[in-house]
Amino acid sequence: MKRIIILSLAAVLCTTASFAQSKIITDTLPSTTLGRAVPVNVYLPRGFEGASSNHYPVLYLLHGLYGTHMDWARTGGLQTVLDELIGTGEAVPMVVIMPCAGGSDVHHVQNGYFNVKDNAYEDFFFGELMPKMEAKYACGGSKGKRAIAGLSMGGGGSVVYSQRHPDLFSSCYAMSAWLDTQVREARTPEEKEDKLFITNQSVREHSALDFVDHADEATVSSLKTVKWFLDCGDDDSLMELSVRLHLGMKAKGIKSELRIRNGVHNWEYWHTALRLSLPFATRNFD
Amino acid sequence: MKRIIILSLAAVLCTTASFAQSKIITDTLPSTTLGRAVPVNVYLPRGFEGASSNHYPVLYLLHGLYGTHMDWARTGGLQTVLDELIGTGEAVPMVVIMPCAGGSDVHHVQNGYFNVKDNAYEDFFFGELMPKMEAKYACGGSKGKRAIAGLSMGGGGSVVYSQRHPDLFSSCYAMSAWLDTQVREARTPEEKEDKLFITNQSVREHSALDFVDHADEATVSSLKTVKWFLDCGDDDSLMELSVRLHLGMKAKGIKSELRIRNGVHNWEYWHTALRLSLPFATRNFD
Amino acid sequence: MKRIIILSLAAVLCTTASFAQSKIITDTLPSTTLGRAVPVNVYLPRGFEGASSNHYPVLYLLHGLYGTHMDWARTGGLQTVLDELIGTGEAVPMVVIMPCAGGSDVHHVQNGYFNVKDNAYEDFFFGELMPKMEAKYACGGSKGKRAIAGLSMGGGGSVVYSQRHPDLFSSCYAMSAWLDTQVREARTPEEKEDKLFITNQSVREHSALDFVDHADEATVSSLKTVKWFLDCGDDDSLMELSVRLHLGMKAKGIKSELRIRNGVHNWEYWHTALRLSLPFATRNFD
Amino acid sequence: MKRIIILSLAAVLCTTASFAQSKIITDTLPSTTLGRAVPVNVYLPRGFEGASSNHYPVLYLLHGLYGTHMDWARTGGLQTVLDELIGTGEAVPMVVIMPCAGGSDVHHVQNGYFNVKDNAYEDFFFGELMPKMEAKYACGGSKGKRAIAGLSMGGGGSVVYSQRHPDLFSSCYAMSAWLDTQVREARTPEEKEDKLFITNQSVREHSALDFVDHADEATVSSLKTVKWFLDCGDDDSLMELSVRLHLGMKAKGIKSELRIRNGVHNWEYWHTALRLSLPFATRNFD
Repeated sequence: MKRIIILSLAAVLCTTASFAQSKIITDTLPSTTLGRAVPVNVYLPRGFEGASSNHYPVLYLLHGLYGTHMDWARTGGLQTVLDELIGTGEAVPMVVIMPCAGGSDVHHVQNGYFNVKDNAYEDFFFGELMPKMEAKYACGGSKGKRAIAGLSMGGGGSVVYSQRHPDLFSSCYAMSAWLDTQVREARTPEEKEDKLFITNQSVREHSALDFVDHADEATVSSLKTVKWFLDCGDDDSLMELSVRLHLGMKAKGIKSELRIRNGVHNWEYWHTALRLSLPFATRNFD
Repeated sequence: MKRIIILSLAAVLCTTASFAQSKIITDTLPSTTLGRAVPVNVYLPRGFEGASSNHYPVLYLLHGLYGTHMDWARTGGLQTVLDELIGTGEAVPMVVIMPCAGGSDVHHVQNGYFNVKDNAYEDFFFGELMPKMEAKYACGGSKGKRAIAGLSMGGGGSVVYSQRHPDLFSSCYAMSAWLDTQVREARTPEEKEDKLFITNQSVREHSALDFVDHADEATVSSLKTVKWFLDCGDDDSLMELSVRLHLGMKAKGIKSELRIRNGVHNWEYWHTALRLSLPFATRNFD
Repeated sequence: MKRIIILSLAAVLCTTASFAQSKIITDTLPSTTLGRAVPVNVYLPRGFEGASSNHYPVLYLLHGLYGTHMDWARTGGLQTVLDELIGTGEAVPMVVIMPCAGGSDVHHVQNGYFNVKDNAYEDFFFGELMPKMEAKYACGGSKGKRAIAGLSMGGGGSVVYSQRHPDLFSSCYAMSAWLDTQVREARTPEEKEDKLFITNQSVREHSALDFVDHADEATVSSLKTVKWFLDCGDDDSLMELSVRLHLGMKAKGIKSELRIRNGVHNWEYWHTALRLSLPFATRNFD
Repeated sequence: MKRIIILSLAAVLCTTASFAQSKIITDTLPSTTLGRAVPVNVYLPRGFEGASSNHYPVLYLLHGLYGTHMDWARTGGLQTVLDELIGTGEAVPMVVIMPCAGGSDVHHVQNGYFNVKDNAYEDFFFGELMPKMEAKYACGGSKGKRAIAGLSMGGGGSVVYSQRHPDLFSSCYAMSAWLDTQVREARTPEEKEDKLFITNQSVREHSALDFVDHADEATVSSLKTVKWFLDCGDDDSLMELSVRLHLGMKAKGIKSELRIRNGVHNWEYWHTALRLSLPFATRNFD
């Protein structure tokens, strides 16, 4: 066994470092709709040179309840996985926008993607975030260059946004999605103001299951223009919701992919989901 | 689409928390061989109750150059993956021992698994670490209940330890393994004392490739009692070393598994390697 | 780029041939219960030497509606996949028994695994097939050395057999399983005698979903001694049945694995399912 | 557990049948170059309507030594896998052309993709097969709409064709590729005329390894315009050839993907390789 090429490991480690030329930056978007500044993480692919550069497709990637804009970068390993998938061509270079719609103090800080009292997040998302970020980061601009994905509460958000704005997204990938929920009357006036209580109500009011059940023919037609992918762990308590949405859409002739993989409601599941969702978004860009 | 079971997400998140009943602790082992205390991380599976509990199989899991005992816990996601694999039965409950053999200051702190001047690490490993940890944590005790794995410098360490002590390990899984290296003469007296220089020399002196090339019949027989698995990224500069070891062993009739997956010399590769290595160790326990 | 080892392809092809040392034979079992001889395919692993050889674990592998004992060998590629998995240690050497319970003429030839008029197949299976084949082929003999799996009608058969005989199987892997069905009254006397009509009725009467719903505490306890795995394609019309069984068992505290992979009700799905089911059976043998 | 939807399996099986709307046909191309008619299998995707239909991308898919144009259809399961991948969008609808370049009687019937005495196959391929089939089946026509792949001798063929005609293929996926071989002098005049002897010589003369070693700067530039993927089993005797080609190309700055998966030189390997190669061809079409 002759050694034709034997390498010093130090050299290897240095070489490896040069791969990391993409970056995730934290931006802040002042919102008149919300009356506050919203932090947004943005993945910029290797070679990105600002608004003067190529025009990229864009993926909106949503965090879950208790989460923030930092989650996909810090815990989800987005950069490593996306860099790798771009390297093999399984994903195309894209901009990924990860806005904050929450925080850990769910009883006092509003979490969620829907319009509620004093937090018209959906209005902000479509009226401010989308146009401003796409202009600033030279991305998106049309359905064929825009995709959405998210986990848990953000999985529900991505589905509901795609249902209500099917003209804006080419594809939707929902992980462990919170697509509907139980509600009850508030027991106290305080509870009525509790932010988690409000989030829960808004999820019920925006039931993705009801939306499909009640969809008329025109709505069904528009839903067929979006590519759907539902992915949930077999030991995730939310699993049945994804199955029901898949079957509900199938009953109306709307095609979707469904995967039940091994797992629970955790970051290991969502990290591995990136290897499915980023190529899926890519395949459905123009 | 009726909703028979609709769950509150808050309930889900609480439920999920109760899965994390395994733990990783940081222990410290005073070593007379090394003249210092060595920090050791230890994964204890769900249900572990100390020395009075069941007797578990043990996996030694080695870090790479610049690394420490904390790496597999903090960056590698060992606990999440092993918990999940134990949950499906793909891995058996086991103790995982992750000793420190390095640190980031490679020029001044000795890194590596081999005996060098003032750092008889291999002596420490087999003479102190192994017997003391296995007694303390109710694990191992025989070849059939002991496996070894590692990444990069630790991948090399796991191979060389298994070559030199084939009676002690049932299996060896080497990730992106540093199995040999180039050396040159020290250019200055200072360089001769440089810790990285010394590490590099020790890797050359313990060439896993040479070991197989020079193995006599008795040695080859003993190597056949270990199950070998070599796993390296296609864009890893060390890749050829794993291929050469695989072919060198095959030429001597020693069976090994080889996988070249997509990837480079990084934690994404090693994290995904856990899904292969932990079941592999499991299959080869008694 | 020097070529140290360059091989003639003819040599390669010859070498490859020598791997195929396992075999699938077609045996015939005269049955007094059924009043006819039943053809049975049997996979014997490399090194199998008859009743005087090692005692092997056994897997019963059931075909679907319209199928026969030949299906897993001819269309499913069992031998290639199992040989390969035994080669890596992902499966242990085992005997696989594939009895005929059908044929393509479903209107005139009885298909199915349950007792119906003039075809007491379950009685045959447990009273004749199992004891005779395990004695003849040096396999099984206890729950810990016996597993069952099957596709579609055979997926349903494997689940129902495991529900009714939980003391006999360590694990059950059901692919695209037919676990329940719709029935209606026969419209003509002829239809009442139609073999497909009878099969359909027997599936309804042996509903695996009802079985779990109606299980008392003792039954639930016994079901927990079997390891369950349900695997069905996302575009398979039977998919909801697997999900319902998974949720029904979960509601009673019976753990099962569920996977929804991409696919429909076809052999590509079942062929790839072998890579999951054979290791699953292996892990749950003693 | 209520059953909202319970299906009759007979209905399922009927529904499933309607998925198979693509087809593989056997065509015959009279060749003046070869002085004989060459059988060619052609996969036509669902919805294909002849030359008046859409213009499709094309994949040339080559068989191995001893093989024929029927292999990928009969043994490789091409239709099932490609239909499924088109269904999920992992592959685009494409035409697949599988010409005959061999047969089982390798000593008397010429096998191979290179020009040899009385069998100018490469001339036939590029001068007759490609233009005629692409015109007839409304496909290809440019590098961006053309890919090539193959197994063993056909893996070598696909690499060498791509090396010699880099302006014609957007990507090349080589499975278990025969990229070079040993030769010796013919021992008898008869051996000199032996077809297998001639095939072997032609593989040596068209060494893909030498081609890269000897490539000048212009050639290297042209090779960089092709996307390369090498995929070989870890227990395949040809494995080292793929590794050497990967390293040889890397040394010249030509990027390629390399995968060493578990396996030998058999159809199980090539069948599973389709799930990688068809998406790879797709990603690299325009």
